[in-house]
Amino acid sequence: MNETGYRVAVVGATGAVGQQMLKTLERLNFPVSSLLPLSSKRSAGKKVVFKGEELTVQEATPESFEGIQLALFSAGGSVSKALAPEAVKHGAIVVDNTSAFRMDPDVPLVVPEVNEDDIKKHEGIIANPNCSTIQMVAALEPIRKAYGLNKIVVSTYQAVSGAGAEAIDEMYEQTKQVMNNEEVKTEILPVGGDKKHYQIAFNAIPQIDLFQENGFTFEEMKMINETKKIMSDNTLEVAATCVRLPVETVHSESVYIEVEQNNVSVKDIHGALEGAQGITLQDDPTNQVYPMATTAAGKDDVFVGRVRKDLDRDNGFHLWVVSDNLLKGAALNSVQIAFSLDKLGLLKK
Amino acid sequence: MNETGYRVAVVGATGAVGQQMLKTLERLNFPVSSLLPLSSKRSAGKKVVFKGEELTVQEATPESFEGIQLALFSAGGSVSKALAPEAVKHGAIVVDNTSAFRMDPDVPLVVPEVNEDDIKKHEGIIANPNCSTIQMVAALEPIRKAYGLNKIVVSTYQAVSGAGAEAIDEMYEQTKQVMNNEEVKTEILPVGGDKKHYQIAFNAIPQIDLFQENGFTFEEMKMINETKKIMSDNTLEVAATCVRLPVETVHSESVYIEVEQNNVSVKDIHGALEGAQGITLQDDPTNQVYPMATTAAGKDDVFVGRVRKDLDRDNGFHLWVVSDNLLKGAALNSVQIAFSLDKLGLLKK
Repeated sequence: MNETGYRVAVVGATGAVGQQMLKTLERLNFPVSSLLPLSSKRSAGKKVVFKGEELTVQEATPESFEGIQLALFSAGGSVSKALAPEAVKHGAIVVDNTSAFRMDPDVPLVVPEVNEDDIKKHEGIIANPNCSTIQMVAALEPIRKAYGLNKIVVSTYQAVSGAGAEAIDEMYEQTKQVMNNEEVKTEILPVGGDKKHYQIAFNAIPQIDLFQENGFTFEEMKMINETKKIMSDNTLEVAATCVRLPVETVHSESVYIEVEQNNVSVKDIHGALEGAQGITLQDDPTNQVYPMATTAAGKDDVFVGRVRKDLDRDNGFHLWVVSDNLLKGAALNSVQIAFSLDKLGLLKK
Repeated sequence: MNETGYRVAVVGATGAVGQQMLKTLERLNFPVSSLLPLSSKRSAGKKVVFKGEELTVQEATPESFEGIQLALFSAGGSVSKALAPEAVKHGAIVVDNTSAFRMDPDVPLVVPEVNEDDIKKHEGIIANPNCSTIQMVAALEPIRKAYGLNKIVVSTYQAVSGAGAEAIDEMYEQTKQVMNNEEVKTEILPVGGDKKHYQIAFNAIPQIDLFQENGFTFEEMKMINETKKIMSDNTLEVAATCVRLPVETVHSESVYIEVEQNNVSVKDIHGALEGAQGITLQDDPTNQVYPMATTAAGKDDVFVGRVRKDLDRDNGFHLWVVSDNLLKGAALNSVQIAFSLDKLGLLKK
């Protein structure tokens, strides 16, 4: 711990993202004077490790946030809805990794590389965008800054870890069942709370989260609405098709964009991406260099490759965007928001 | 065999597609009076079964085609380039499932549901399109007929069987290696003949076939060029991003289109697809009904679901198109071309 740091609570500390939050706070040396791991009643009593110290997880209640300066939430939307306002009442600033407040007009939705300044408008809660949104806007913002952006059509290739640790187990169990010619059991994916469950092993499922009335899934609508909010552009055209794959971690995305300017070249797009914060360009077709889940796993950056100019529309481009959904897609972005809060002097001393 | 049928040769009879060709000729009861299975020297002597009869595979040579009326080729582009003209010289009509002649202006490129009449222009060879192209144009043609079509942006989710039987083995071997925490051996995918090989198990590889100078892969250019040729529309805008997945059989595709007419509804698109030849509409989000690889495997049809109207462009639509790449994507389409040849009276009696 750090005497001059902040009193930090992590809600959902035993989950896949919560665990990555603890690791990321430690790895990036965020100034923490005390770390309080919180969870549901079910997981209370479990142990987690932070900076070599074993800590006992406590059940999250309104009173848990007494004296807390920063609370990172990643325990599901209903927990955030119930407890984030309580944390704020107790004086904490909340960084929330659920969809509970993302589209609330009073809550900034932040990817620091894109819209760090929006944090200043916070009223206690800052929302962390959806994983598939974060990596896409991080990759597109340098292009938008340089050449403008009119339209996005994205098709995703998403990892099962986005559906939680149980979905990872299910994928590996089903894989064994297929390999052993056993009956394949389906209990969780595509959506734990939906009516039907389908095999993810050796398959691709075009459903992530529940269907909305307009035929898009909630995941697709998150990508559409969050992108417009983060980029502060309601006229930006965005469409998404979200697909789950038998991949443990790291989301990939096939992205078609139309920029505002004409006569932009692939070299120009490369130039915009090279050196951009948090972006690694991996684009050398001659040497088969392009981003993949296997090479991006465990890494902080958003990897971009396969940049091609559309053969028909002068302002059209195609990109392949890959990033670790538990890191930049979740824990890392939340911790980066915490660093921004510190930098902007918004955390109470 | 059928006394009144045709003398048919299948070149590449021991391969994954060749095997499906034999099964499909039998299953659909194509009129065959004699079946000659041909292969490379390496596979000659192997046995195949056709209509309960065991047949010995012979090495394909120019002389093999003496007396043959119909030759189905699926043994790689170089074999087709060398032997298809020889088969034609001997009086056979060739249906070629390789990329050797697809873009030859004298060779019709045919999906019977779309452009059966093009067969009439043949000069001995009819080309079977690429698997990923076939299912897409089959799904889009009924929409194009009803409402016109200006633009296609497709992202594919392609099965390893498209890269041959060895790629299937590699995927399952790598899966075992990952599950057992062993070193993962990479020898074939993404492209057997390319320099580097990457893990496909629990991954997504954005490369199918070799890279071209414009940054697109050959697979992507096949989808682009073949679609324009099959639909006889050089002004049609087409772009593709082709991605290999750890799925054994069945390709899925996320397709964005812009139609010519305005005020078209999802119901209109459904209406165009319902009852279209070779198409099954599976689109009921309320009941989580959409096409998937696991449910389309082994089936003849092209399955279409997730039809959504774009939220920004009135003429934009999104679809999810799924089909068995070894059946409609290869063997079935070739046999359908053979049926069309018979129906049009183009096979010599």
